[in-house]
Amino acid sequence: MIPFKEDDTFSAAFTLSQQVYDGFISTFGDINPLHTDASFARDKGFEGKVMQGNILNGFISYFIGMALPIRNVIILSQDILFRAPVYLGESLTLMAKVEDIHESVNVVTFKYDFTNKQNIKVAKGHFQIGIL
Amino acid sequence: MIPFKEDDTFSAAFTLSQQVYDGFISTFGDINPLHTDASFARDKGFEGKVMQGNILNGFISYFIGMALPIRNVIILSQDILFRAPVYLGESLTLMAKVEDIHESVNVVTFKYDFTNKQNIKVAKGHFQIGIL
Repeated sequence: MIPFKEDDTFSAAFTLSQQVYDGFISTFGDINPLHTDASFARDKGFEGKVMQGNILNGFISYFIGMALPIRNVIILSQDILFRAPVYLGESLTLMAKVEDIHESVNVVTFKYDFTNKQNIKVAKGHFQIGIL
Repeated sequence: MIPFKEDDTFSAAFTLSQQVYDGFISTFGDINPLHTDASFARDKGFEGKVMQGNILNGFISYFIGMALPIRNVIILSQDILFRAPVYLGESLTLMAKVEDIHESVNVVTFKYDFTNKQNIKVAKGHFQIGIL
């Protein structure tokens, strides 16, 4: 029994906090100057240090594992397109919508996007989950 | 000037260490029972706690930002397909190969895979970077 139907929509809010930024760096060590050197980032045309895009993939991990209405899920695949830079302290809304349901194999495909407070869609993509 | 040519290949080794696992959980809070409860995971047919797939996306962040031969890069898009579970303590090799070069816009597309010590390809996908 798949507890989703097409077009079901789920959302959650996330903040690119100092704690998340520091935690990502201490876990993975990505201190590329774009993410850590504001003057380097400004020289490249950004407003300041650009947050690591894969922080958003960490938010997706939480969203799938903890915010969907069931716990017996596993991620099969994901994609993400980064449309606009995200900066330290920004708050994002993740909206995910059921796009396809594959009943015979208990697989559900969602499309999602992250929107910031200026209503800019900063990233979008899909994830596919299996129901265990 | 794009410092890559088609079929250039890069690799790096990563370990799903206790430190990475704990860091990912404390940063993102994904404590889904599949990742934290070995008996739940075994009931679902796995050997033990399955690591969060997005830890691999964190490794990709490091790889792009820190292991490629240039620092002036930004990720434009990524995809990942999870082919086999990864467990605590496993070591993975990430191999990435230049698939396409878009000279006019300074964009390079790679395909990649993660292989474990049993030579199982546990994940694969693509990432596209812009050279700043």
